Amino acid sequence: MTTNTSPARGFDTAEFQSRTEKAQAEMAAQNLSGLLLMTEPELRYFTGFQTLFWQSPTRPWFVFLPATGKPIAVIPEIGAALMRQTWVEDVRTWAAPAPEDDGISLLTELLAPLAHKGARIGVMKGHETMLRMPLGDWERLITALPGLEISDATGLVQGLRMVKSPAEIEKHSHICAIGSAAFGTVPDLVQMGQPLEEVFRAFRLSAIGLGADDAPYLVGGADQGGYADVISPPSRRPLQAGDVLMLDTGCTWDGYFCDFDRNWAIGRADDSARRAYDVLWRATEAGIAAAKPGNTCRDLFNAMSGVIAEMDSSGGDIGRLGHGLGMQLTEQPSHAAFDTTELKENMVLTLEPSLSYGDGLMMVHEENIVIRDGGAALLTTRAAPELPVICA
Amino acid sequence: MTTNTSPARGFDTAEFQSRTEKAQAEMAAQNLSGLLLMTEPELRYFTGFQTLFWQSPTRPWFVFLPATGKPIAVIPEIGAALMRQTWVEDVRTWAAPAPEDDGISLLTELLAPLAHKGARIGVMKGHETMLRMPLGDWERLITALPGLEISDATGLVQGLRMVKSPAEIEKHSHICAIGSAAFGTVPDLVQMGQPLEEVFRAFRLSAIGLGADDAPYLVGGADQGGYADVISPPSRRPLQAGDVLMLDTGCTWDGYFCDFDRNWAIGRADDSARRAYDVLWRATEAGIAAAKPGNTCRDLFNAMSGVIAEMDSSGGDIGRLGHGLGMQLTEQPSHAAFDTTELKENMVLTLEPSLSYGDGLMMVHEENIVIRDGGAALLTTRAAPELPVICA
Repeated sequence: MTTNTSPARGFDTAEFQSRTEKAQAEMAAQNLSGLLLMTEPELRYFTGFQTLFWQSPTRPWFVFLPATGKPIAVIPEIGAALMRQTWVEDVRTWAAPAPEDDGISLLTELLAPLAHKGARIGVMKGHETMLRMPLGDWERLITALPGLEISDATGLVQGLRMVKSPAEIEKHSHICAIGSAAFGTVPDLVQMGQPLEEVFRAFRLSAIGLGADDAPYLVGGADQGGYADVISPPSRRPLQAGDVLMLDTGCTWDGYFCDFDRNWAIGRADDSARRAYDVLWRATEAGIAAAKPGNTCRDLFNAMSGVIAEMDSSGGDIGRLGHGLGMQLTEQPSHAAFDTTELKENMVLTLEPSLSYGDGLMMVHEENIVIRDGGAALLTTRAAPELPVICA
Repeated sequence: MTTNTSPARGFDTAEFQSRTEKAQAEMAAQNLSGLLLMTEPELRYFTGFQTLFWQSPTRPWFVFLPATGKPIAVIPEIGAALMRQTWVEDVRTWAAPAPEDDGISLLTELLAPLAHKGARIGVMKGHETMLRMPLGDWERLITALPGLEISDATGLVQGLRMVKSPAEIEKHSHICAIGSAAFGTVPDLVQMGQPLEEVFRAFRLSAIGLGADDAPYLVGGADQGGYADVISPPSRRPLQAGDVLMLDTGCTWDGYFCDFDRNWAIGRADDSARRAYDVLWRATEAGIAAAKPGNTCRDLFNAMSGVIAEMDSSGGDIGRLGHGLGMQLTEQPSHAAFDTTELKENMVLTLEPSLSYGDGLMMVHEENIVIRDGGAALLTTRAAPELPVICA
């Protein structure tokens, strides 16, 4: 487990250099003359450019990773000062927003020499990606570069990002410790009769007060004997005896997430809820035991599913039993039957078994781990082995 | 100004019905047989589906708005329970994530009858949009529907969303009042020598404690006589006498944003900073005066630019002097020379004049307004007319 001493913010230049060189080695192997990136985590990964301004959808942002050398930024002028603080030297800007030409002629100029050679570049167009620029602008760009071959670089980039560096793991460890401490305060925050909305507010204040930069993701539910949904905003419904309360949070520190949940029984717990909790706690144990280098995500899924089947063999609504964790709340890979990604040392993952029971109820458990040489190391303080009863 | 009494959360079904009917009237005028939507604010606008789960990039979500009738949801199974609580009746789901077929065959089935007729549907592919699904899946989808004509519906949807309903304005008004109250606490939160990071933390706690659901956007800066950047995360640099501190926040309530900033001088203010503040305060006044139905965004821009030119005629790095506000931190339109959008009653806007001065310094002011029949009504408590000095 971690301490609450803050690690350093940001990364050494050597880390960006190493990420870039690894990408370029893989690009060479795939005969790619460059990578065109436009999404927040990818820009941050290769440049260190970190801002909450991505919440504004107005402007597109681009980084081009050439076959050799440093990344080239093609960005709105408003980001120039911040980008120039990173290790990137070639920062090309335009006065955005400019609906008629939002970076497209700058990109065309940058890529035209490659297009003339009939070169191939990678963009991320596969599973779990999005095109963070207007589709119309994308169509205009590729029309302007007819010789350019576009290849899917999703696997290349996700493969790099899946394995974390020591400095990244330190940030995860720090925010997981803060999240664990915040969940530890819940028995003191929650009162019988409190509207769920107020529970959420109190939790957020606790997490930020304990050192989280923010708690941007907070969902959960509470109802008699369980909850029916795991992605809802809070209602005004007051907590009642017999409720099962679940809070699931993605808190951030220096741009890295924790993502885990906790369950509590309010006043009393019925047998079904206790049993669901016990099955999921043991499913998580099975996941922890299976989380070793060389095993696959499918192995993790099977290990957890085997225990879940004691109570529910439906497969549930969530589609997987955990996922990668990083600069995004959820990242590749997926603990699912379809995902044969091999677990490697320094992957940061969630284990998230869930099951359905009773009349439309469900329960979900979640822990965060890092894969080490010998097996999984918990980043979160392990949930209690029995459903905790609070407000009793 | 508003009170701090919370309005009701959510919207009446009549509001979703009205939004849908207005869209369908416009679709008929443009000969569109449907709209395919995939972004968070658009899904929420037409269905009421509200969840923070969009922070997970793993799963795509789709809503199809047919020429008549209610929206049709094509979404991952994990969202089914929440979507079924909305006014939408036709909810089609798949077990996501499913990299091989993440909703594509469901969409193909839904759209095939239109494709066979050579019909035209709208998607948002213009300025300020993104394709929130894998580009590869989009390419597969349109290849599977060769008869379907795809038209850009950006203007149609943005045109509707720009003009807010009374219930939407009530939510804006509420969060702007909370944001104003939070800025009002800053003189008590901030101390000489405090690292900027701690100022940010204290502000977030204040805003959430005062009733914001969250303060997801918080940027700012502080340095001697001004700041050089307006989108950065906080540093550990301690506040010093002679600093100008700026905080810019997007707080949310029930999924609606405020977006405004405030400036303070720490201990003392120099003449340049005072003058920049005064110019921007008067530029905002000019913007407020010009913010009338019938004027355009360009008129707003010109009114503010005219005052800013007293001190800076460079045009600055931000690219505009304010924007629309709503479910997103920034929305259409833009107060810029290129934007001739006519101001209409019930548009919610920011006025955000900025200027550069001294050696690489800049200052920005921001207020939030709603356009009324007679002119602008402030949603934020107007900033003090002179640069406030705190920690003196």
